[in-house]
Amino acid sequence: VVKVDMLVERTDVPPGMTYRQAARKAVAMCVSDFASKGVRPDSFLISLGLGKLAQEDARQLALGFADAEREWGIHLVGGDTNEADELVIDCAMFGFAEKIVTRKGASRGDTLVVTGPFGYTASGLKILFSGAKADASFAKAAKQSVLNPKPDLGVGLALAQYLTSAMDSSDGLARSLHTLARESQVGFEVTSLPIGPGVKKFATANGLSAEKLVLEGGEEYVIVGTVKPSKLASAAAAVRKAGGRLLDIGRVTSKRGKVELSSGGSKGPIEDEGWTHLR
Amino acid sequence: VVKVDMLVERTDVPPGMTYRQAARKAVAMCVSDFASKGVRPDSFLISLGLGKLAQEDARQLALGFADAEREWGIHLVGGDTNEADELVIDCAMFGFAEKIVTRKGASRGDTLVVTGPFGYTASGLKILFSGAKADASFAKAAKQSVLNPKPDLGVGLALAQYLTSAMDSSDGLARSLHTLARESQVGFEVTSLPIGPGVKKFATANGLSAEKLVLEGGEEYVIVGTVKPSKLASAAAAVRKAGGRLLDIGRVTSKRGKVELSSGGSKGPIEDEGWTHLR
Repeated sequence: VVKVDMLVERTDVPPGMTYRQAARKAVAMCVSDFASKGVRPDSFLISLGLGKLAQEDARQLALGFADAEREWGIHLVGGDTNEADELVIDCAMFGFAEKIVTRKGASRGDTLVVTGPFGYTASGLKILFSGAKADASFAKAAKQSVLNPKPDLGVGLALAQYLTSAMDSSDGLARSLHTLARESQVGFEVTSLPIGPGVKKFATANGLSAEKLVLEGGEEYVIVGTVKPSKLASAAAAVRKAGGRLLDIGRVTSKRGKVELSSGGSKGPIEDEGWTHLR
Repeated sequence: VVKVDMLVERTDVPPGMTYRQAARKAVAMCVSDFASKGVRPDSFLISLGLGKLAQEDARQLALGFADAEREWGIHLVGGDTNEADELVIDCAMFGFAEKIVTRKGASRGDTLVVTGPFGYTASGLKILFSGAKADASFAKAAKQSVLNPKPDLGVGLALAQYLTSAMDSSDGLARSLHTLARESQVGFEVTSLPIGPGVKKFATANGLSAEKLVLEGGEEYVIVGTVKPSKLASAAAAVRKAGGRLLDIGRVTSKRGKVELSSGGSKGPIEDEGWTHLR
């Protein structure tokens, strides 16, 4: 299995992110996609576009790639270096899988699952970009979710055999649900929003909508997928064994392309909002 | 075999190059490397960084990738699209080879060969960038060498089994010779510079050095390599059969890292000049 993913400074490197973190993140973006497809990554190549940078910045980039190698047991095997207006890191990743989980396999009655809570990255970006207020421990967790994203590789590999469809949430939960709904020609009823601890309090304190933070964030690198109800217990056990937690947040309906929230304050349609390039 | 190569607007897209040509060139850069290594390309992925562009520009990029697919019998199988300050096209290419030609295998007494004449791309850039004067047919050939580079894929695949070392000349002939010399721990004596027809006349008319145009150009996507003298005739025949021409331009010496010109106006050392990023 091969894939490419490009990190561009202006859209993917928020204030406060170091070169080392940016380099690691570029690899994390690929690892996350592989995790959600049940693909074990083996190696990667890096194409760099570099603006004027100090020798120390180059060293930090190298350290970030080394972090990624260690963290996910993968190898940087080649690449290309170029001059550019801004930092560009393109990662080409290679891996292996016995079966690839697609976006097309969800069917009516399947359970909708995610591998983690949502709302931290959107909160972290509000803190980093616009100085939103938060208590120290929430601020730290939210900022870390942005600066050091943790794709669920072990969880993804353990979960893959149970998934009927999946993708990672890099463009936000709402966007991911709409994409899965469209590709699988089904709908989703979300019965319980996976709101991360502290997100509601942060939202209230800053006059923000917790639901928007959960649904329209992005780059959580959490797996969003579907499993047969008869496999839910086994899937949850496999995820627990891999050190994670599987959240049941709803079910697949036959209403093609419709994503709806059936509980909580704002019952009704979930709009297809999230990150859009070149809008 | 896998490789990545990144095209960045500011350094790789000269004035006069269309989006369609830029897209094709990004793939040509990878095909050229594969050709010089005897690797048959199979498929590629494209990561795009796009500035604000018109719908027609996007269509031209797609046409350029389609040109590349047809020209080299390869398939675009995936990619990623991003927003960036300038056009960035990163190509990740996959292919197969029974044996890979490295940069390390040249040994004393081997014949130094190239698969085409030099001087056109440097002349073309002078015409495109600084309006250097040339007669119409030379100007056309020189500009085409820049805008529509022609990597020697068929020639490379036919030649590979005879090569003891090789690389493509994307950073210029002098730089390629120094790289091969360093990696093979040998030297080169260039007995005959591969000056393209018309290059001397163009150089004289514009007060330029023909030798510099030949040695310090770059992006010719010509193969620079070494063969055993006993295999030279077979190698030349194989190249002819593939529609190309093999030029014998010198020999490998035991003077580690030394590249020298032993005939013509400026006998003596050939400096390690050529394209350097981030100078």
